[in-house]
Amino acid sequence: MAAEIICVGTEILLGDIVNSNSQYLAQEFAKLGISHYFQSVVGDNIARIHSLLEIAVQRGTEIIVFTGGLGPTPDDLTTEAIAAYFQTPLVERPEIVADITTKFAQRGRIMTPNNRKQALLPEGAEILPNPTGTAPGLIWQPIEGLTIFTFPGVPGEMKRMWQETAVPYLKAQGYGQIVIHSEMMRFRGIGESSLAAKVNHLFALTNPTVAPYASKGEVKLRVAARAESVAAAKKLMDPVVAEIKAIAGLDYFGSDGASLPLVIGDLLRTRQETLAVAESCTGGGLGALITSVSGSSDYFLGGIAAYANAVKINLLGVNSADLQNQGAVSETVAQQMALGAKQALGSDWGIGITGIAGPKSDDSAKPIGLVCIAWADPQNHVFSHTYRYGTDRDRELIRYLSACDALDGLRRYLKNDKS
Amino acid sequence: MAAEIICVGTEILLGDIVNSNSQYLAQEFAKLGISHYFQSVVGDNIARIHSLLEIAVQRGTEIIVFTGGLGPTPDDLTTEAIAAYFQTPLVERPEIVADITTKFAQRGRIMTPNNRKQALLPEGAEILPNPTGTAPGLIWQPIEGLTIFTFPGVPGEMKRMWQETAVPYLKAQGYGQIVIHSEMMRFRGIGESSLAAKVNHLFALTNPTVAPYASKGEVKLRVAARAESVAAAKKLMDPVVAEIKAIAGLDYFGSDGASLPLVIGDLLRTRQETLAVAESCTGGGLGALITSVSGSSDYFLGGIAAYANAVKINLLGVNSADLQNQGAVSETVAQQMALGAKQALGSDWGIGITGIAGPKSDDSAKPIGLVCIAWADPQNHVFSHTYRYGTDRDRELIRYLSACDALDGLRRYLKNDKS
Repeated sequence: MAAEIICVGTEILLGDIVNSNSQYLAQEFAKLGISHYFQSVVGDNIARIHSLLEIAVQRGTEIIVFTGGLGPTPDDLTTEAIAAYFQTPLVERPEIVADITTKFAQRGRIMTPNNRKQALLPEGAEILPNPTGTAPGLIWQPIEGLTIFTFPGVPGEMKRMWQETAVPYLKAQGYGQIVIHSEMMRFRGIGESSLAAKVNHLFALTNPTVAPYASKGEVKLRVAARAESVAAAKKLMDPVVAEIKAIAGLDYFGSDGASLPLVIGDLLRTRQETLAVAESCTGGGLGALITSVSGSSDYFLGGIAAYANAVKINLLGVNSADLQNQGAVSETVAQQMALGAKQALGSDWGIGITGIAGPKSDDSAKPIGLVCIAWADPQNHVFSHTYRYGTDRDRELIRYLSACDALDGLRRYLKNDKS
Repeated sequence: MAAEIICVGTEILLGDIVNSNSQYLAQEFAKLGISHYFQSVVGDNIARIHSLLEIAVQRGTEIIVFTGGLGPTPDDLTTEAIAAYFQTPLVERPEIVADITTKFAQRGRIMTPNNRKQALLPEGAEILPNPTGTAPGLIWQPIEGLTIFTFPGVPGEMKRMWQETAVPYLKAQGYGQIVIHSEMMRFRGIGESSLAAKVNHLFALTNPTVAPYASKGEVKLRVAARAESVAAAKKLMDPVVAEIKAIAGLDYFGSDGASLPLVIGDLLRTRQETLAVAESCTGGGLGALITSVSGSSDYFLGGIAAYANAVKINLLGVNSADLQNQGAVSETVAQQMALGAKQALGSDWGIGITGIAGPKSDDSAKPIGLVCIAWADPQNHVFSHTYRYGTDRDRELIRYLSACDALDGLRRYLKNDKS
């Protein structure tokens, strides 16, 4: 039952990209209970790909997952190398040619001859469809006891193909009968170590297990159980999940696919209220985060990115004396921006963000990472807060955390609001 | 002169961490001109580590770099596995014991007995000092023509040890006299296969080499040369880079750290002109992309995210009859948005974006992935274009590509503009 991963791509050997595909596939093997002892990376070179196939066959590997090297250019050699190793001819598949032609047509482009190469698969191999890109993969049993999968190196394409075709295929082969079910619980407004200290007694559990993860803009706890069914796993997890929710209170905002923009969207939609934003340092990033959710037009009217002070004054009605005296990065200005967004766009709620994302400060003595955020409610009550993200974080992270906290503040306001 | 990397750690095989050490070391090999054909990952298991050593020795590898498995716990087995493979006894090094004892004392802690394990190295191996952590590595030539390095898995410790000891050691061995210099050329407005077809004759070159890469929102060609100095490598690359630029024309937008927001920023700054944007489907993402560049306040005044049609009418002056008749996603509306952004914010240039990012369409019969973008110049000339990103791409990608093309269109306009 052992699987190995072979990533093909000279760009990985040159260090141009990090090999995130291996991490994803390793997690997926774990979920399906597939043993996994080796990962390799090799360049776009037929002889070296052959040498790794030979090693994998010699050590009795039952599943080889290849990523990369399926594209249209001459250095995309994975399919050719696999076919040649097993001395099997490549055959053009008309259904792949048709699929590629359609995709080019949809994008208003003509298929170039080199794309035809992507339609060649070894005789006897099944097509592993690629719904997003033009390079399909394959599923093939070239010899008894060995199944080969190939995927493009583009992570988004690989993941979708893995989920839509490879996982059902492997389950049909009997993998994944003992399931590992997990819930990723998400938190904002508490640090990883503080949360870990509060739930420390749960880390010793063995089934379910509780493990902390930190990621950009949130802290996560993964609660996971092994059982013969998802329902049985959930039953093991339920009391632990409930205990964590009780401990974390409002710092917990949702699980699994939940995100701050989804959560505030649901809250606003339920209340039938609308939102507008006024952004300075985030330059549109808060609006982009809110509208990352499909259907956000139900509650998001829009925003004003007021990067220049003149725009703050003219479109948002920020007081020029306050801008002068307190500086653009101040709670006073953030509050006027939140109210100005409401006023200009006619929304129920308004958010204003102004801050110093770095790497240079403005002309004031204020430190990089200082961000003021304000929220205005339907009755024009305004609440504001100053965040200090620290001088050691980079511009993009400070901007992203600002947008997250703008949504998190709104979430807390909406959750507490009994009106 | 071939090196390979073996990363030891069950946590990598479980997908708990991404293998960033391999990327770093791969880049370092390239800088030193060390050929690098294989990377492997293996768990904390002596027999499997032996099998990889055997494979590496068989294929004539001259440098093996191990990371991970040097810690004090029973599952840290790298040093033990290497010594056993070459049938060499482990010997406790008093200088390592002294160093670990000192480090524990500095942190106000007592060294635990399991830390003594880290002082064991194979007889004949040199110590590779770890200035930061307690686990040193080794440099060892167990057999003629093979040098082994070991490093801890913690990236910060590994990198410092690499720079402070391994790099000088390798240079003393004569590595780094041949350098690999590369330039990553970046393109927008042409697909990977079309670009590849145009420069196909260059893929056969051996020094410099030319290789294509696709990534989100751009296509890249990496031109790389081996020579005895960076200057000599550049001399080899210059005619090829010039030829590619001539072939690609305006589709080439810059090299290495260049990005569309940086390029348009430089163009606008030089002309002392300003920009404002009006966004519908991107919801602020175009403004966020523009302001990802530090110093963008020199030319970016701000924007209006007009998600609701009422905002398009009230703040941008979009004609409500046109909205009704042609739909929000139309070049007419995009043009009015571009002009409206200029007008409302008082900028020299304006961009308008309106489209259907999916996964659901609007009420019209227009397909997902249809995006109209318009550019208004300082004389209020307006140019617009309709993009079809295809129905198979996801919301975030369609939004990101829209923002890229909005900047790319402006770049072409500015580049062509002789006024």
